[in-house]
Amino acid sequence: MKPLTYRESGVDIGAGEDAVRRITPLARATNRAEVLGGVGGFASFVRIPAGYREPVLVSSTDGVGTKLKVAFLAGRHDTVGIDLVAMGVNDILVHGAEPLYFLDYIAVGRIDPAQIEIVVGGIAEGCRQAGCALVGGEMAEHGVGHSPGEYDLAGFAVGVVERARLIDGTAVRVGDQLLGLASSGLHSNGFSLVRRIVFDVMGLGVRDSFPGTGRSVADELLEPTRIYVRSIKKLLESVEVRAMVHVTGGGLTGNVPRVLPAGCRARISRSAWSVPPVFEVLRKAGRVKDAEMFRTLNMGIGYVVIVPPVASEMAFRLLHEAGERVARLGEIVPGERGVELVA
Amino acid sequence: MKPLTYRESGVDIGAGEDAVRRITPLARATNRAEVLGGVGGFASFVRIPAGYREPVLVSSTDGVGTKLKVAFLAGRHDTVGIDLVAMGVNDILVHGAEPLYFLDYIAVGRIDPAQIEIVVGGIAEGCRQAGCALVGGEMAEHGVGHSPGEYDLAGFAVGVVERARLIDGTAVRVGDQLLGLASSGLHSNGFSLVRRIVFDVMGLGVRDSFPGTGRSVADELLEPTRIYVRSIKKLLESVEVRAMVHVTGGGLTGNVPRVLPAGCRARISRSAWSVPPVFEVLRKAGRVKDAEMFRTLNMGIGYVVIVPPVASEMAFRLLHEAGERVARLGEIVPGERGVELVA
Repeated sequence: MKPLTYRESGVDIGAGEDAVRRITPLARATNRAEVLGGVGGFASFVRIPAGYREPVLVSSTDGVGTKLKVAFLAGRHDTVGIDLVAMGVNDILVHGAEPLYFLDYIAVGRIDPAQIEIVVGGIAEGCRQAGCALVGGEMAEHGVGHSPGEYDLAGFAVGVVERARLIDGTAVRVGDQLLGLASSGLHSNGFSLVRRIVFDVMGLGVRDSFPGTGRSVADELLEPTRIYVRSIKKLLESVEVRAMVHVTGGGLTGNVPRVLPAGCRARISRSAWSVPPVFEVLRKAGRVKDAEMFRTLNMGIGYVVIVPPVASEMAFRLLHEAGERVARLGEIVPGERGVELVA
Repeated sequence: MKPLTYRESGVDIGAGEDAVRRITPLARATNRAEVLGGVGGFASFVRIPAGYREPVLVSSTDGVGTKLKVAFLAGRHDTVGIDLVAMGVNDILVHGAEPLYFLDYIAVGRIDPAQIEIVVGGIAEGCRQAGCALVGGEMAEHGVGHSPGEYDLAGFAVGVVERARLIDGTAVRVGDQLLGLASSGLHSNGFSLVRRIVFDVMGLGVRDSFPGTGRSVADELLEPTRIYVRSIKKLLESVEVRAMVHVTGGGLTGNVPRVLPAGCRARISRSAWSVPPVFEVLRKAGRVKDAEMFRTLNMGIGYVVIVPPVASEMAFRLLHEAGERVARLGEIVPGERGVELVA
């Protein structure tokens, strides 16, 4: 028997080193002043930004879910990294935190350095949009378990907020106004249902045209999740915000109640915005009930801001000027904690 | 056609909720004073502990690699969570950081709440050993892609260190002494090679006896990675430490040079400790070359502490009293950055 080596047992150290060489400059380009260098890093070093009296770290971990499977079908790997960052930073943004840094975990069957470079390019682009530094990551080569060319992604976002300015939903009051920020598309939730309808029921392929959108299935389904950091940072500088909501798995129905105190109910007017065609097409083709749509997909609203009535118009204007499409969704009414969709 | 629902498309929301109910008390039991509660959490909140003048956040992400495949074969899921935490916290410990909190990511084909509870029980146990709080996590249900009962784990550890006390290897000098802390076994690296030898070459099953150890293959291979936090925290209170090394993928050969400045070479005496039987058995059965063993597996040394000569005996004694098995590995000599194994 020939002597065994680690490499022959299914781990390609050379490919791993090549991948690290390719992604290091991508990560470095996202650096912030708070990121410290260091010799012999087993870990990443980030200072707390100056000016915080009682800094609170706000952290979230998330993945991209089965949206990845659409990327595999389309052979398009440059956008799911943006989704990964969006899922993490929008979650910490909800609490008023400034995203500081991000780490990623990529699991593959076998490392393909060129593909890793493309995926991490997307993660770096997401970090750029969010203003946070990509400071580290891990590539796990599992030998088997992922089909060739497939991978899984997880991300970790850390932000900081002054303790007195932490937003957690306890401040919401009856009469507060809800503003909805348009999503860029399906974002990164509900893809098990979406794929079932598009590929199984409608029988479409990724290169086919998606009805009613003038775009291909791949373009429509892989549109990256919008990152709301820049607009919300501007908003928080000038306006009292009572609570915010990232519309992820669970849709408006599932996520808005997460920030409501007892006795507060969100009354949302369905005529406040136009549900984009992609959702209507999916609903009809899958014969999905309306309530199921609203508790599974974002229906065109990716992020919700709750402000006191007096601040509503200024918030609307600031968000609009920051480049968001904003809808006046409705208001907080007395009642059981929950969401009430009205005509 | 029946109306489609999210659940029917492969996502079991009820199982997810059941899993969350089971793991919430496990996570809560690891809480530290710095962890803040909050209504409607989209993320986790952790204060910086009191007493830091210029706190630096030290972060690491890692997985357990193909050690998971041994857990699947053995149907034993309560220890890989300890490995996950160990891989993260030992990495940040190297820089002198106090582990503060941890988040986990679990990807499964289909959520099995009882199994998730067992896995997260291990993660919580690891956090307890490391003194850090398990503050959040994500369960990703991929529908397919993982075989039934299989999963992937990623973890994210954050610690804090006073900037002036950050340890990064720049301080190492010729004459410094290397102390090695015993590993608990194979830890969580090199398992592609280990599995190849144990299952393919030796033809053993997980319930068979592992030669020379008096233990089963499952017991020997799944022994959890040692967490060095408590001992090293004690050491750092009293002794000047120049650098530390977590012996992960790359072994002593690959990891020690990561903290050496140019012109510093680690001369390690192989007679300083007895390589545990598991490594000898693997070496012989796989006919693995000696150098390959030392750059793939930890060979019995899981963590290395580098101290100035004057502090060496005190460090030895403190680590010994803290419950570590300590070996006087050797010293730093002038020469090309690297490791020199001598008889």
